[in-house]
Amino acid sequence: MIRSTSQRIAHTLAALDRERTCWISVGRKDGSSHLIPVSFCWDGVQLVVATRRQSVTAEAARRTGRVRVSLPSTDDVVIIDATATIVTLEQIDVATHLFYRQVTGRDPARETDPFVYVVLSPVRILAWRDDRERARREIMRESEWITDDDA
Amino acid sequence: MIRSTSQRIAHTLAALDRERTCWISVGRKDGSSHLIPVSFCWDGVQLVVATRRQSVTAEAARRTGRVRVSLPSTDDVVIIDATATIVTLEQIDVATHLFYRQVTGRDPARETDPFVYVVLSPVRILAWRDDRERARREIMRESEWITDDDA
Repeated sequence: MIRSTSQRIAHTLAALDRERTCWISVGRKDGSSHLIPVSFCWDGVQLVVATRRQSVTAEAARRTGRVRVSLPSTDDVVIIDATATIVTLEQIDVATHLFYRQVTGRDPARETDPFVYVVLSPVRILAWRDDRERARREIMRESEWITDDDA
Repeated sequence: MIRSTSQRIAHTLAALDRERTCWISVGRKDGSSHLIPVSFCWDGVQLVVATRRQSVTAEAARRTGRVRVSLPSTDDVVIIDATATIVTLEQIDVATHLFYRQVTGRDPARETDPFVYVVLSPVRILAWRDDRERARREIMRESEWITDDDA
């Protein structure tokens, strides 16, 4: 069964609530790519991840302002292109810090190395389960959810 | 339980035999990254994937010769940095073509758009299940499996 755009949006929102870890990829200075799993929380609008201040991910987020994220499943695909903003542990609002800690079970303030938050705002989201859905895989474009009428 | 290097190598080889799809990430010309799921087969030495000749993945593989691949799971992590070589459908050896078709159930020769194979030779492999294993996550370095003595 091919899901409508609104069904794929509903499933994607549920998956973002349910999942605790995503793959995050960034471009490296030498033109290659980096890819690593990170814990995240989703507040309905943004994904929040945490990483070492000096990590490849943080460095690239600072330099390019862009990341590409996916949920783990390769059968029920959710891919997100997002803008990335570094927020220090001092700058992050308390609610986001507590929510991240509760959802992921991790506390960036207790890591040995200095950590930062990276706040990800989705710009484009792709969601598909098979080749038929893949042909119309966009469910968000230019930060706007696509309606069934647009699709 | 922390697995030894040789255990993590054995588990990684089994996962590469078992899995049918991986995440493949490449650097884009604009400095950002691309990330997409692809079917693959593993012959014990190389991963073979197929993609449209004009895809972002093929273009980057041609330009940079490097990709980073992961198996889907973010709990039982396998990440592979590999050299990437484009092989056309005319150039690929028949055994590899038949093996790819059998393992993935896909035939690049029957796609609407022109496809190419991308042959991936692992250079570095990381494998871990938890933070304790993550500290010693390398199981292959400079295309050589690491022995328990090296690790």
